[in-house]
Amino acid sequence: MDEPLRAPTIDDVRAAAVRIEGEIHRTPILTSRAIDEIVGMQLYFKCENFQRVGAFKFRGASNAVLSLSDEDAARGVVTHSSGNHAQALALAGRRRGIPAWVVMPTSAPAVKRKAVQGYGATIVDCEPTLEARETTAARVMEETGATFIHPYDDPRVIAGQGTAALELLADVLGLDAVVAPVGGGGLCSGTCIAVHGENPSVRVYGAEPEQADDAWRSLREGMLIPVGQADTMADGLRTSLSELTFGILREHVAGIHLVKEAEILNAMRLIWERLKIVVEPSSAVALAACARLHPELAGKRVGIILSGGNVSFPGDALL
Amino acid sequence: MDEPLRAPTIDDVRAAAVRIEGEIHRTPILTSRAIDEIVGMQLYFKCENFQRVGAFKFRGASNAVLSLSDEDAARGVVTHSSGNHAQALALAGRRRGIPAWVVMPTSAPAVKRKAVQGYGATIVDCEPTLEARETTAARVMEETGATFIHPYDDPRVIAGQGTAALELLADVLGLDAVVAPVGGGGLCSGTCIAVHGENPSVRVYGAEPEQADDAWRSLREGMLIPVGQADTMADGLRTSLSELTFGILREHVAGIHLVKEAEILNAMRLIWERLKIVVEPSSAVALAACARLHPELAGKRVGIILSGGNVSFPGDALL
Repeated sequence: MDEPLRAPTIDDVRAAAVRIEGEIHRTPILTSRAIDEIVGMQLYFKCENFQRVGAFKFRGASNAVLSLSDEDAARGVVTHSSGNHAQALALAGRRRGIPAWVVMPTSAPAVKRKAVQGYGATIVDCEPTLEARETTAARVMEETGATFIHPYDDPRVIAGQGTAALELLADVLGLDAVVAPVGGGGLCSGTCIAVHGENPSVRVYGAEPEQADDAWRSLREGMLIPVGQADTMADGLRTSLSELTFGILREHVAGIHLVKEAEILNAMRLIWERLKIVVEPSSAVALAACARLHPELAGKRVGIILSGGNVSFPGDALL
Repeated sequence: MDEPLRAPTIDDVRAAAVRIEGEIHRTPILTSRAIDEIVGMQLYFKCENFQRVGAFKFRGASNAVLSLSDEDAARGVVTHSSGNHAQALALAGRRRGIPAWVVMPTSAPAVKRKAVQGYGATIVDCEPTLEARETTAARVMEETGATFIHPYDDPRVIAGQGTAALELLADVLGLDAVVAPVGGGGLCSGTCIAVHGENPSVRVYGAEPEQADDAWRSLREGMLIPVGQADTMADGLRTSLSELTFGILREHVAGIHLVKEAEILNAMRLIWERLKIVVEPSSAVALAACARLHPELAGKRVGIILSGGNVSFPGDALL
């Protein structure tokens, strides 16, 4: 892994769309007059909360798993994640009929461990440190020959995530801008490549919590700055960019917009109340950023990628 | 109003469907492998939470308003309700360009008053008693000549509500049963007439909270028994049947199934977590009843009418 990763191209995104077509849901696009009035734009919500495993992550994981040769695939896949990527990779592995290992800290919530196991993956425990995760994943690779699939620092994963924007552009004509949340940058990078590959004049914005503003800082300073203490309710956005996603965002985005925690909560409530759908805080970050982008986007046609809908509710009697 | 109201026929429901076609949303039908596994049936969720004003009530209100002669319509419409029917009638009135009055107790939550006003209706205050609501509505009718549109004790309203089931049957072939929640009985009555008009062999079940079991008691005793203390979180189901809806349910339903408050909460969480949609507790009652209907419906194809998605979340900064 010494040579730098190559950014995927629009052709990679298009190939991913064909590759994963039978695997993913083509998610709907919702609109709300009430939200449009409040925000002052025509908003089109791409609902990846309705994606399999409840998040866009299944697109990237599927594309990565289906990109493997039969020989490589047979040895399985491995990742370290306790979030949506872990479930996504578990399901993608099961769909291809290959083993999947997920390295997870012993401190991860039981509900997440259960979900990953429910999709048929094997959990490999590790201590809750980055170093332990990496050495444990390396050990699994060594012992099994499994291929490591990173949650975002992987061109195959980024190309897969870009397919959501590809569908959005196909379904909504004449978009002026697209807004996507930024965590590790996989979704936003894929969105950049898909959108600009289709139409370079459509602006792409990243949306980030003030409490996890590494992409905003990195772009401002022109160098990769890892996130510090990421104290945000948008738990999917607490990760830092990689060199690969940083490079893509630097080339493509019209700007990263920061939002406060109260704005995230407001935007989430607005989506729940008006669109009647369940989204996770990370998704709401993109809508909150839109409100910030007024008047820059006043009256414009703006696509928003709602990244997912995995929220835990109290109790578990029926589950 | 001395002669008894006539139950609508399947032709009335079909005519309503044509009449309101341009007004309503044709709502989607969602499915979930995970919920199917848990409940042990193939479930098809008719998502009236995505209906305009967030509930099926807009169907009945629209049909009633559009059924009026131009002369009657010009004098406006009036109702007493602080729930979804009030908002539905307000919007239906505005769409036809006629005045709408909503009699509402001074104790009604500000958010509900605001919603009704937002749709352009005039709120007429009254004391929080049934008598005050009725005399106030009668006064408005006398002063304005407006037509009273009852939330459920009205054949035009019932026919309108039945259009949801008509769409469900058109979109999902081979259903064995349909389950709808029962409050005043308008939705369930309309569902009965639509379903049996299309296919008499499909069973229709009503779903009711144990804490508001007037339909269950009424059917058991063969006489209309009003609800007593209705202490249920399913606030849309606290009302009692009318003679009209009681008669329709008695003729058509295969049974009313009661569910406990804890079951409603579990079912609501299951819908939020797995379908990723926001539904109100009344909707969850229907899914909870399905779980009770196992093994009677084991493995069957069952349609569930999700009545609406109007839930209040804390805070209101953006709204």
